[in-house]
Amino acid sequence: MFGAQITNASAAAMYETDAAIHDLGIEIVHVEEGGAVVAMSISADMVNGHDVCHGGLVFTLADTAMAYASNSFGSVALAAGASIEFLRPAHAGQRITANATPAHIGRRTAHWDVEVTNPDGDTIAIFRGRTKVIDG
Amino acid sequence: MFGAQITNASAAAMYETDAAIHDLGIEIVHVEEGGAVVAMSISADMVNGHDVCHGGLVFTLADTAMAYASNSFGSVALAAGASIEFLRPAHAGQRITANATPAHIGRRTAHWDVEVTNPDGDTIAIFRGRTKVIDG
Amino acid sequence: MFGAQITNASAAAMYETDAAIHDLGIEIVHVEEGGAVVAMSISADMVNGHDVCHGGLVFTLADTAMAYASNSFGSVALAAGASIEFLRPAHAGQRITANATPAHIGRRTAHWDVEVTNPDGDTIAIFRGRTKVIDG
Amino acid sequence: MFGAQITNASAAAMYETDAAIHDLGIEIVHVEEGGAVVAMSISADMVNGHDVCHGGLVFTLADTAMAYASNSFGSVALAAGASIEFLRPAHAGQRITANATPAHIGRRTAHWDVEVTNPDGDTIAIFRGRTKVIDG
Repeated sequence: MFGAQITNASAAAMYETDAAIHDLGIEIVHVEEGGAVVAMSISADMVNGHDVCHGGLVFTLADTAMAYASNSFGSVALAAGASIEFLRPAHAGQRITANATPAHIGRRTAHWDVEVTNPDGDTIAIFRGRTKVIDG
Repeated sequence: MFGAQITNASAAAMYETDAAIHDLGIEIVHVEEGGAVVAMSISADMVNGHDVCHGGLVFTLADTAMAYASNSFGSVALAAGASIEFLRPAHAGQRITANATPAHIGRRTAHWDVEVTNPDGDTIAIFRGRTKVIDG
Repeated sequence: MFGAQITNASAAAMYETDAAIHDLGIEIVHVEEGGAVVAMSISADMVNGHDVCHGGLVFTLADTAMAYASNSFGSVALAAGASIEFLRPAHAGQRITANATPAHIGRRTAHWDVEVTNPDGDTIAIFRGRTKVIDG
Repeated sequence: MFGAQITNASAAAMYETDAAIHDLGIEIVHVEEGGAVVAMSISADMVNGHDVCHGGLVFTLADTAMAYASNSFGSVALAAGASIEFLRPAHAGQRITANATPAHIGRRTAHWDVEVTNPDGDTIAIFRGRTKVIDG
């Protein structure tokens, strides 16, 4: 297969088998070699008592964008670590988007930047993560 | 109220209003001033195609432990940032536990260490996060 | 003063009083509002027994770029935290360059990305840091 | 050689060849398998115009503690990444101490916690880093 086909096949296979992102309603907006955009609508179930979306779910969205980006080359890569800064709260009813781009692609280890934005285009979180290609 | 009562009241109020952690089946094992232990059983819905629990959900568990620990003093604190290292995969059927302890407690900003372990006592993730007390 | 003059005055004042960066031979290549480029030649004194430049000195260079960038608006900002990934070794004889750009500028807290490159243009480290404006 | 002898020989060899830490006056207080304590007196040359020690030099001290701890098992390990939180300023005239302890020791990758304290016993920085054993 050529690059784009591998990317699409890889993304489709991941999506198929991934119950967690279905449960959260995460939508794969776009995947290309070395990048991915995913989105999630924040339901009433995802916020705490202050109507603020759980940081863990914002992290999960960013991590999912990184997963699709890091697997877009056709080999299997797993998250090894990540850091996130929460800049603004996200609220119920908002659809938030995570855009993963490469910070550095090494032979087996890659670093990714993910920006999470709200519908007004404000950045709500910045995430930097590290993935490792695994054998087999 | 005295310390322990504030801690319990604060934890109970948080738990009451927090739909997300109910959805994930997160259980509050123990909260004391400056610390918290929470646990989650990994269901088939929480793993990807390789039977590995989503890193985002492991992060969410650790973040929840930090939330209960940081709110245990009676004032409202929110997560400002965090980093996590994924050391071992967690699998469906395992009950994993997150234990939050203080790394440093400042006047308004606190740093927390959270260790996530599997039923064999192996560390599956280490998390360090930062919380800020908010007014009102 | 207008923006560029404040930036230059602020950078000149910082440089004047900063013995540590003189000692390391750090050179301020360029400062503009919201960005800075600094450089350092790696001497034989800066490497360990494997001819690899100390990670701490690479961090110091990146941190210096962030300091000039974060002070470029005319108010005093200090580093609150940072993370760095070491991607390639730097060796004695190389002149390495750190370029700080904004990841997110908030009211008092800003986040910065710094990329450190060697003379071949290879990225040797990526750094993300957080600064806080202080009063007075 | 037995454990303690390997540790001492390894630390002595590192110290011998490490010009940078001599230049900064870093002193190796104690090394044991899986841990190290190092110290540094802050000279007038290490502070900026506000009499605050450069964050980069505080990082360098913490990184040096991690280096001695991670090499204490007899194989060569290098820093792969680290994060630091600056909690309090350190000033000229103070002797600051960095204590590295394991956060997690894996087969080739280890994570370390380093706490940096001032002479009053206050924590001035917390550092978490990752080292990798290299071949040969």
